[in-house]
Amino acid sequence: MRNLKITLEYDGTRYSGWQVQHQRSAGSRQRSAKTIQAAVEKALQKILQEKIRLVVSGRTDAGVHALGQVANFKTKSRVPRDKLRWALNGNLPGDIAVVKIEEADPDFHSRFAAKSKVYRYIILNRAYPSPLLRNRVYFYRHSLNIRLMRQEARVLLGKHNFASFQASDKRARDAVRTLRRLGIRKDGERINIDIEGNGFLYNMVRNIVGTLIEIGRGKLPKGSLSKILAAQDRRLAGPTVPPGGLYLLQVKY
Amino acid sequence: MRNLKITLEYDGTRYSGWQVQHQRSAGSRQRSAKTIQAAVEKALQKILQEKIRLVVSGRTDAGVHALGQVANFKTKSRVPRDKLRWALNGNLPGDIAVVKIEEADPDFHSRFAAKSKVYRYIILNRAYPSPLLRNRVYFYRHSLNIRLMRQEARVLLGKHNFASFQASDKRARDAVRTLRRLGIRKDGERINIDIEGNGFLYNMVRNIVGTLIEIGRGKLPKGSLSKILAAQDRRLAGPTVPPGGLYLLQVKY
Repeated sequence: MRNLKITLEYDGTRYSGWQVQHQRSAGSRQRSAKTIQAAVEKALQKILQEKIRLVVSGRTDAGVHALGQVANFKTKSRVPRDKLRWALNGNLPGDIAVVKIEEADPDFHSRFAAKSKVYRYIILNRAYPSPLLRNRVYFYRHSLNIRLMRQEARVLLGKHNFASFQASDKRARDAVRTLRRLGIRKDGERINIDIEGNGFLYNMVRNIVGTLIEIGRGKLPKGSLSKILAAQDRRLAGPTVPPGGLYLLQVKY
Repeated sequence: MRNLKITLEYDGTRYSGWQVQHQRSAGSRQRSAKTIQAAVEKALQKILQEKIRLVVSGRTDAGVHALGQVANFKTKSRVPRDKLRWALNGNLPGDIAVVKIEEADPDFHSRFAAKSKVYRYIILNRAYPSPLLRNRVYFYRHSLNIRLMRQEARVLLGKHNFASFQASDKRARDAVRTLRRLGIRKDGERINIDIEGNGFLYNMVRNIVGTLIEIGRGKLPKGSLSKILAAQDRRLAGPTVPPGGLYLLQVKY
């Protein structure tokens, strides 16, 4: 059996996420929602003519995009990698594409082996929205103090309990994560917030960005972020920004 | 009466163009298609509570985008420009937005007064398509000789009869136009082709780009473009590239 590592780009707009998050109450109805995983497995099965089960580095939520999502799967097929990529890109819907396919060690597991993930959140900071970038950026028209956002953001670096930034309805048993990098850069009318960490809680990036925006807008006093982080209480942090501005850029191994 | 000049950005994907091109045979059915003009007039009429008729710098075709389309309209309303822009962006569909609104002279006519227009065509030149840029760029996977494309393109500059590059089913009485600039630049995986001229025939930019691609791919011998231009025969030029890669960047007055 070969173990193939596959890197994907996708536009998450039409999907309920990589995989549906099963909820106790509405299980069966949710399972029929459109997912990236199902679309890729379907195309793989059609081409390889065998049952394929993808293991992913981590789920992305509904509406979230990826430029470098990584998954892996086992196959008996001996089809060359380039040929398989080409066939997949011909069979996948236009909002999902295969960037590359690599041979991996038999025990490579895209989730367990991931050392860190890099996310980017894009804010479009100008007076009017962009039709050509809708569902691609978060349009925010008020001016933001980026220097202050950068200063405050520093307290998030390193190993912390990020319970204040996780979705209130989906709590992890252990909310301790390590952030390796948090960069905020202005690029014309855009503000790119790049966050790298060893793992992320549900909605964590979008809740951090929502809080940083409140800081940049002057709605929270100086030193707030450090207090919010220490409180481990979701109610203190800012709102969850929309998924369309979020991109999984890279998974590092 | 005020004469307001309005600059628009739009994603042309869902539309039949700025305005439906009336054809002799299928008039009534075509008229019901969705157009940018109808969407903007509808929003204006709702806000201003009067009949509004937009005059545009020039139509864009189905699927073509704009970052700086210009139109103008007369109104009795005294609403401040900023307030009107804000109201419009709240009422327009998400794929159309108002960039700015300016007061114009009473006799300003966005079509007759236009000195030149700048279009950009974007080719995504890499091995696999981009889900995040679908309907935004033309995905072309073969390598292109950009230097050769630039060399050949020079013959198009200046005043010529561009009949070889106009849609065969929609011929202008006078096919003479003046091209002021034709720039081809590589920007990472993208190739941007910028064309500025005093006016364009139907499909002219897309037919020029289709021909340049054939040159860059090595399908046409050196010196072909000059012969194609001189022949004034559409059958000699390359294919019409898809509309999703084309942007009306700017109208100059």
